[in-house]
Amino acid sequence: MTDMMQRIVLARRPQGFPVEKDFRMEDIPMPTPEAGEVLVRVTYISLDPYMRGRMDYVKSYTAPQELDQTMGAGGVGEVLASRDPAFSEGDLVFGMFGWASHGCLPGKALRKLDPDLPPSTALGVLGMPGFTAWSGLAAYGDMKPGETLVVAAATGPVGSMVGQLAKQAGLHVVGVAGGPEKCAMATDTFGFDACIDHRAHSGALDMMETLHKECPKGVDVYFENVGGHVLGGVLPVMNLHGRIIICGMIAWYSGESDETGDMPLQKLWRVALVKRLTIQGLLQTDHVSRFGEFLAEVGPKVKAGEIAYLEDVAEGLENAPGAFFSMLKGGNKGKQVVKIA
Amino acid sequence: MTDMMQRIVLARRPQGFPVEKDFRMEDIPMPTPEAGEVLVRVTYISLDPYMRGRMDYVKSYTAPQELDQTMGAGGVGEVLASRDPAFSEGDLVFGMFGWASHGCLPGKALRKLDPDLPPSTALGVLGMPGFTAWSGLAAYGDMKPGETLVVAAATGPVGSMVGQLAKQAGLHVVGVAGGPEKCAMATDTFGFDACIDHRAHSGALDMMETLHKECPKGVDVYFENVGGHVLGGVLPVMNLHGRIIICGMIAWYSGESDETGDMPLQKLWRVALVKRLTIQGLLQTDHVSRFGEFLAEVGPKVKAGEIAYLEDVAEGLENAPGAFFSMLKGGNKGKQVVKIA
Repeated sequence: MTDMMQRIVLARRPQGFPVEKDFRMEDIPMPTPEAGEVLVRVTYISLDPYMRGRMDYVKSYTAPQELDQTMGAGGVGEVLASRDPAFSEGDLVFGMFGWASHGCLPGKALRKLDPDLPPSTALGVLGMPGFTAWSGLAAYGDMKPGETLVVAAATGPVGSMVGQLAKQAGLHVVGVAGGPEKCAMATDTFGFDACIDHRAHSGALDMMETLHKECPKGVDVYFENVGGHVLGGVLPVMNLHGRIIICGMIAWYSGESDETGDMPLQKLWRVALVKRLTIQGLLQTDHVSRFGEFLAEVGPKVKAGEIAYLEDVAEGLENAPGAFFSMLKGGNKGKQVVKIA
Repeated sequence: MTDMMQRIVLARRPQGFPVEKDFRMEDIPMPTPEAGEVLVRVTYISLDPYMRGRMDYVKSYTAPQELDQTMGAGGVGEVLASRDPAFSEGDLVFGMFGWASHGCLPGKALRKLDPDLPPSTALGVLGMPGFTAWSGLAAYGDMKPGETLVVAAATGPVGSMVGQLAKQAGLHVVGVAGGPEKCAMATDTFGFDACIDHRAHSGALDMMETLHKECPKGVDVYFENVGGHVLGGVLPVMNLHGRIIICGMIAWYSGESDETGDMPLQKLWRVALVKRLTIQGLLQTDHVSRFGEFLAEVGPKVKAGEIAYLEDVAEGLENAPGAFFSMLKGGNKGKQVVKIA
């Protein structure tokens, strides 16, 4: 055990799209666990779109990221030293260690991992993103066989889980992704019925026409990850009593506006009334009491290869900011994680 | 029985706010009931905001009003002649007779009325508007004692029922209405805890400040009848897991825009996600299988005076257009009906 550990802090709040100078890597003294605490060597860090929102100083569902403090993030790692009797050296655990090489947390803030699964799965397919997909559909999807579901960011960890769960529930599943390679991945790796390349569509009207073609019976469930012209294209194709589950809006995270973002609220209100839509904001923490149910249902499917997942692994803590920027631009293929040496 | 009856047809589609010339009164031959049909002398016609929407040539939840045909509307009246054994001369019935002095409909399209209640109640408190309020709250309100509900058009037939049902369910109930007289009516006649005069508020910010004062614990349920700056004021005051039930948007029925109507969709999406709102379009016809349940619950309360109602009665078929215009501007006090001579 060295005397120092590494971490990355938020040096300043990004103006629009974040850049390297918004972050700073530091060496700090290795913490020593106090009574009830556990010291962990982090092996994988999770990078997720919600982190961009936390970098702004706005009241959201979580407090903003503090300046000059370790960037918040989930991670997995190996217990180095434990002063909580529930954990022993060598245990694999999940915890909110942040963008850091090590973390020291109370044992009750940690979750022990199933040693029969790769630890990084606890950050994606069997972690927060997978649970987001599962809990949103379970609570609000009201999926019926023969219906149609659309989800964007189709090869991301949330979108790919949404699509696979919907397929297994008997729905016609259409993804939206950026570029032909990701679209092929959505159909070949994740079993989507079709996947639309949003980069080949310049606006909402364009997108609507293709959606109309790929969803001949209309759209019953739209799982919203992106906003932008994908949303603009989906709205007119929604069926009576359709459900829109708002999980994210990555197209708008850095304050950009566009034709759909600027669509007057009045128009949405009319569509929602005429089609009697249900529009529902989703945050997985609201459903956390069902996390065990999720693991019991999806864990065995992952082990059996019945749920596929992809990970995009960046190497080295120092490369976390770059991997984060790339993910915000859709450069990742699958769940973005950072492997720590 | 005369040989002729009177009706009002839509002569042309209104451009923006409707005017007298959009309508035409006609004498047509009195119909003769065929087998299974019932001829009815109409005594009261219902005027409702949804009729404005049907005057435009747009696909909505009902087909548009046809030109040169009787303006559609619910009405009540007395059976003059019946060729359906389920109805006899003198029976009081409800049916979709339109803006007309008489109607001839299949018996199965009619509903016999409780002779112990004034027939006009079947158009308001115990008709479509009352059922709209009841079914929306029953299906989507998820009301809990101690929560706060806001409803605009508070003295109208939907709003006044929403407020009274919410009060009886133990909620803090705040209305919004136009002018001090209506506001007094909301609190004195319908028992609202408070009522805000939207005419005394110039914009959404203004409205938000007053709503914040009258709803110190925030807003859990917003029953949407109006859109406009009332909606703009409510959105920032919505609580976590709040419900918005979209029933109408009278402020926008004639295509007007305003600061809130033009609010970018992107803003709503963020509020819906951060607060995990449920936004639900409501149309009472979706719930029509529960109409009996509604009558069984609310009918006795109306008889016992436990649910108050107000009617604004215009006299004479020829005055239907004028009463309709006045209602669209909020000139009515209570459910607008037209009494036929």
